[in-house]
Amino acid sequence: MRYADVGELVVQARNGVPRAVARLVSMVENASPALREVAAALAPHTGHAYVVGLTGSPGVGKSTSTNVLIAALREHGRTVGVLAVDPSSPFSGGALLGDRVRMEQHATDPGVFIRSMASRGHLGGLAWGTPQAIRVLDGAGFDVVLVETVGVGQAEVEIASLADTTIVLLAPGMGDGIQAAKAGILEVADVYVVNKADREGAETTVRDLRGALGLAGTYGPDDWHPPIVKTVAARNEGVDDVLAAIDAHRAWLERTDGLHARRRARAAREIEAIAVATLRERIGAVSGSTDLADQVATGKLDPFSAADQLIGSERRTRGGRP
Amino acid sequence: MRYADVGELVVQARNGVPRAVARLVSMVENASPALREVAAALAPHTGHAYVVGLTGSPGVGKSTSTNVLIAALREHGRTVGVLAVDPSSPFSGGALLGDRVRMEQHATDPGVFIRSMASRGHLGGLAWGTPQAIRVLDGAGFDVVLVETVGVGQAEVEIASLADTTIVLLAPGMGDGIQAAKAGILEVADVYVVNKADREGAETTVRDLRGALGLAGTYGPDDWHPPIVKTVAARNEGVDDVLAAIDAHRAWLERTDGLHARRRARAAREIEAIAVATLRERIGAVSGSTDLADQVATGKLDPFSAADQLIGSERRTRGGRP
Repeated sequence: MRYADVGELVVQARNGVPRAVARLVSMVENASPALREVAAALAPHTGHAYVVGLTGSPGVGKSTSTNVLIAALREHGRTVGVLAVDPSSPFSGGALLGDRVRMEQHATDPGVFIRSMASRGHLGGLAWGTPQAIRVLDGAGFDVVLVETVGVGQAEVEIASLADTTIVLLAPGMGDGIQAAKAGILEVADVYVVNKADREGAETTVRDLRGALGLAGTYGPDDWHPPIVKTVAARNEGVDDVLAAIDAHRAWLERTDGLHARRRARAAREIEAIAVATLRERIGAVSGSTDLADQVATGKLDPFSAADQLIGSERRTRGGRP
Repeated sequence: MRYADVGELVVQARNGVPRAVARLVSMVENASPALREVAAALAPHTGHAYVVGLTGSPGVGKSTSTNVLIAALREHGRTVGVLAVDPSSPFSGGALLGDRVRMEQHATDPGVFIRSMASRGHLGGLAWGTPQAIRVLDGAGFDVVLVETVGVGQAEVEIASLADTTIVLLAPGMGDGIQAAKAGILEVADVYVVNKADREGAETTVRDLRGALGLAGTYGPDDWHPPIVKTVAARNEGVDDVLAAIDAHRAWLERTDGLHARRRARAAREIEAIAVATLRERIGAVSGSTDLADQVATGKLDPFSAADQLIGSERRTRGGRP
């Protein structure tokens, strides 16, 4: 397929052709030369999908929860695009076994699109490739875009910055109470789901979480109180409660004008990430030709003075004032 | 203390005054206004410390291993500065209980300095604050700078880019074999340590790791073969083997000129990170005054065109050509 066909690809994607959607995601994920053209062609169709982020430590049941959420959303007549982002994986493109299994389960349903993405290697992790992929699924017309990622390090903070509603998944007996507080997820979750709620320790997890949330501060009458929902995803229990919690959060966002504020902030970060990446490329081209690194490595120059020289030379090569 | 005292602080730090070292780390960690002055004052004294990175999943025994490594290095007469970097922590400054305990253990030894750092909130995670803190400990005259961090997501890749020798710590029965392959640590480790080697499954972990390393490629005669060292850090077993492995790797680096190459590459990344942060700040100041984010959020403009406009306006305000 040629780049000239970007417009046609977007039309096909909006007509529900999975291959066209997949192709567009690949183009943005791999930063193909047509990336800008894709973004421009999609823009008029974006801003309609509701973006749900789902994150949690390894082992809490993210894949299973995603699967039952997809099924529940489909029952409510909503189409779903899923991005399974693995911030630690060097692989991409749905190559992992688990995703193949998941793909097959929904393979015959044109209302579901599932795609795995690696974020390693992309500038700024989730910050770069994922928003563009969300934009593809949004532009393709999916009602809900579900972004699933392993909640490690900064990933859950980043996913929260991309989503309209962020779900943090926990499970009993994984020390998640302490981990939660430590990792700062108390700041990012809109909905908590304690999965595997039939296991011993589920009540303790809920209580610890409630305690931690209580410590995190008091809520005003117009504030959102993140609910704690219990599920057993493997048995499809409690999933409607999760959907209800998402809908309640959405209603609250729309009532308080928070939805537009979130999306505006998301767009601002996206623009900034692209602008910085563009500037970084320009710097990279210059730094290869200098011995600044040598001078810093041997203590002859400090890195800040070196950076000043780098920006200075970058500006000169671009014709700006020195 | 006033900024005018930066030179005096550096002198004190080099004379082994822990408070001066701590103060300098705080200044670079918090990007104080004197950051540049600190970097400039330190530069002539840097480039002498050997930087060891130590990373691994939660639960493999990083703190314990760090502690016995410090003790072993001290027995060999080497001074040690330790940075415990928690990429997921919003806290910093040694406030965590575990670090207080560790501090106390070495509190009376002027040849040891331990400091925890959060990397959250810093631009680019480890990429920003940690190199500057390493620079402080290097400039303060510590023989070895040990950087300990939780190996999640990109952290172990980032730590490898900062260290002369990177140690990846594993433990039996944590599925680390698969995790290792997945997280790409096979590319970054110079030395593998299988800790808790008295536990069941230790041999399996070593075998899995050896198998994965074998799959990762063949080694030429001049290549470094990452050794696998077994330890029981809690009983101080195998620690001298770890030191021997570090020394062997260092000798190999020096023989192949790899040490200077690594440090040059590290300096180049550091300079680039600072240059990008500087440019990002300039962009940020401009983006607040535009409605570009609104246009992107509502689909009127794609983010790449918005970024072009942002860079364009940024250049104009700086007096460059439009």
